[in-house]
Amino acid sequence: MVDSKKLMDKLVGLCKRRGFIFPSSEIYGGLNSCYDYGPLGVELKRNVKDFWWRAMVQTRDDIEGLDASILMHPRVWEASGHVANFTDPMVDCKECKARFRADQIEGALCGSPAYKGRKAAKCAEEGKFTEARQFNLMFKTFMGPVEEAANVVYLRPETAQGIYVNVYNVMQAARQKIPFGIAQIGKAFRNEITPGNFTFRTREFEQMEMQFFVKPGSDMEWFEYWKAQRIAWYDALGIRRSKLQFHQHTPAELAHYAAAAFDIEYEFPFGWKELEGVHNRTDFDLKRHAEFSGKDLSYFEDATRERFVPYIIETSAGCDRTVLTALIDAYDEDVIEGEARTVLRLAPVIAPIKAGVFPLVKKDGMPEVAEKIYHALKKQFNVFYDDGGAIGRRYRRMDEAGTPFGITVDGQTLQDQTVTVRERDSLVQTRVASDKLVPFLQEKMAAYQRPAS
Amino acid sequence: MVDSKKLMDKLVGLCKRRGFIFPSSEIYGGLNSCYDYGPLGVELKRNVKDFWWRAMVQTRDDIEGLDASILMHPRVWEASGHVANFTDPMVDCKECKARFRADQIEGALCGSPAYKGRKAAKCAEEGKFTEARQFNLMFKTFMGPVEEAANVVYLRPETAQGIYVNVYNVMQAARQKIPFGIAQIGKAFRNEITPGNFTFRTREFEQMEMQFFVKPGSDMEWFEYWKAQRIAWYDALGIRRSKLQFHQHTPAELAHYAAAAFDIEYEFPFGWKELEGVHNRTDFDLKRHAEFSGKDLSYFEDATRERFVPYIIETSAGCDRTVLTALIDAYDEDVIEGEARTVLRLAPVIAPIKAGVFPLVKKDGMPEVAEKIYHALKKQFNVFYDDGGAIGRRYRRMDEAGTPFGITVDGQTLQDQTVTVRERDSLVQTRVASDKLVPFLQEKMAAYQRPAS
Repeated sequence: MVDSKKLMDKLVGLCKRRGFIFPSSEIYGGLNSCYDYGPLGVELKRNVKDFWWRAMVQTRDDIEGLDASILMHPRVWEASGHVANFTDPMVDCKECKARFRADQIEGALCGSPAYKGRKAAKCAEEGKFTEARQFNLMFKTFMGPVEEAANVVYLRPETAQGIYVNVYNVMQAARQKIPFGIAQIGKAFRNEITPGNFTFRTREFEQMEMQFFVKPGSDMEWFEYWKAQRIAWYDALGIRRSKLQFHQHTPAELAHYAAAAFDIEYEFPFGWKELEGVHNRTDFDLKRHAEFSGKDLSYFEDATRERFVPYIIETSAGCDRTVLTALIDAYDEDVIEGEARTVLRLAPVIAPIKAGVFPLVKKDGMPEVAEKIYHALKKQFNVFYDDGGAIGRRYRRMDEAGTPFGITVDGQTLQDQTVTVRERDSLVQTRVASDKLVPFLQEKMAAYQRPAS
Repeated sequence: MVDSKKLMDKLVGLCKRRGFIFPSSEIYGGLNSCYDYGPLGVELKRNVKDFWWRAMVQTRDDIEGLDASILMHPRVWEASGHVANFTDPMVDCKECKARFRADQIEGALCGSPAYKGRKAAKCAEEGKFTEARQFNLMFKTFMGPVEEAANVVYLRPETAQGIYVNVYNVMQAARQKIPFGIAQIGKAFRNEITPGNFTFRTREFEQMEMQFFVKPGSDMEWFEYWKAQRIAWYDALGIRRSKLQFHQHTPAELAHYAAAAFDIEYEFPFGWKELEGVHNRTDFDLKRHAEFSGKDLSYFEDATRERFVPYIIETSAGCDRTVLTALIDAYDEDVIEGEARTVLRLAPVIAPIKAGVFPLVKKDGMPEVAEKIYHALKKQFNVFYDDGGAIGRRYRRMDEAGTPFGITVDGQTLQDQTVTVRERDSLVQTRVASDKLVPFLQEKMAAYQRPAS
């Protein structure tokens, strides 16, 4: 067990050292809350996205994929309610011009050098602050050269609206009928006042959202179905079930348009936090877009000759957050032969590298045989060749990268063409004929179980 | 042969009808130059990106992947030269306030209702215009709630800079040595005055860029290597070689930092246009970032004990542009049994759907057998089940979607478990044992050749 207080620091260090995640623009001192995925991180993130896409789109007949643009017509955000309501309350100090979140004045300090260290709450008491104004969390920019109101566009704060406005285009092109869903992976942006906890809350982030369109009356049944599907997905991703829970939104938490909402939460080192939301959004979204666009967005059901505005069940996951969860959940430390080891117990399906290939020594023809095996495996999956340093050190490097298998070419290989396959978690070593490596690894990967810890 | 003047209109229509590409926010009248990828488009784009990633990262030992954030430190764009130089010249009319690109006044019309139809060039002659000012093409926004100069950030206008600022982080984490490269796929944004030609030039677009870091002196050799590699990639993608050419930048076209530059051009219906740039960027980029960040970005080569600032060979491709090229190049019309057919001759590796599965009739147990085959194939690749309408119509729908194979379950299947496999391009029909379908299709896909046309 790793001390949860120290875990985040250790993980951030490992992420940088091994090339999972770097601070953005680091040579310029970084950019608050922006991060870059390095060579291992980009493969891990690709694997998470592919795993989601496969589960939500490619293996299903009732969900279609979509990839909508980040810049959308500004009326979309009026219809969605984001222009009016996606806000935090702000106040300005009339004297020193400092700006605060009205609900976070408690504990904040005055911005003026003349009153250094003075509590902002005291300034508030003395009436130095303006009335609270709502600050909109959408990033705003201008399309075209003229910076005027008519040219304002927003960076989308969620991918969902791109799905709603396309529902009938998709339905018609893909010849779908309700119930059916549309899934999308893409970037969204929120000008958060308080980003933090590494990649947990960032201003730029990637979402994996699916919107399922159903007949009113069948909505709660589909809601329960998707709750079960989505928590099972995290299981399949290798996240420990004991670290996951449902949190039902209380009436106070529930968005005005939602009939029911559950968060799937993970126990992060900084507390239980939302990983994904499963929401029954009712017919709010399509009614609003019908109103604002003037288009009829109701659906005519052939079988019953009924016309209705579809209800929407949404499953909204954060991709960066899922990657972070996978890393945190996988992070472990143990002791092997008296030596401390850091290991990422990533499920093989998302591990950036599936196997390391090592010649035991750099002579006796071992490198040639190892390279041949490496190139043969590389046609099937991401593998890594390493001939540097003691074999134990090479194993450790792969353990830290989350690589589930180590394949070593040794003296016996030259006699009987078998290699040693070492498993990251159990440390079991098996001799396998080198021409049977692909099916051996495939079987092991398919049967993978996260060890209890 | 399809009339090239009509081809774009036909393609845009097919893209919408079949769900490749929709206009963004269409129910709100669309948003100029923004597009959404529908169910077929998103799979096509995924396949193009995966094909590039596999060729440029996963099958190579000397290139690492990266996924940097869109928002970067604003100093990055000072160092890169974008803040000062990434501009188009603009003029304003002092009378009617219309704005023009200074180099496009010829042909433009006055914006004032009082002078309707009057040529802007005449206004220019009469001295109504301001001096030309430079308009920067970067989209600008503010990070944090305060809209002031200190909080300006830009949407990256290219992905390349995210690679340059990370070069030593990546090199160290991945234990690479020069020569080596970093590859990245991601969105970029340019506030173009004149977007157009469908998805050819859009304000929001996705790039596939690779930056290869080399020792000065070896740069032209690597430049030639990458030219050859990259044009071969389009061949492998199924683009007709006769439609591709190299265009060497003339001294006037060459960017000030480039020692050599070639565009890979495709013959679009609207002329020969750039598909990808292969550039020798010299040591310009790392020297600038060293200067602006104050960090030493030189490289020490162990073998020779030499220190140098690496040269960069860049291969910069547009992802949306490659998808558009694949669609245009694949679009064909022919006549089958006296009936006109529209067909997308997409290479199987990028085709959104690999095979359609059809029961000849909806009885005699054929749907059950066809569904079984469908579910078995779906584990391997994207396939589509269709039991609606005459078999000829079902074939045509798959032809239009670019699906290379049609699999039909008929009376004979019930006798001997064979099915008919129809090939989209040759129209050859072969009877194949249904339990041999996977290897049969895999072999056919691997051996695919685009028919001459």
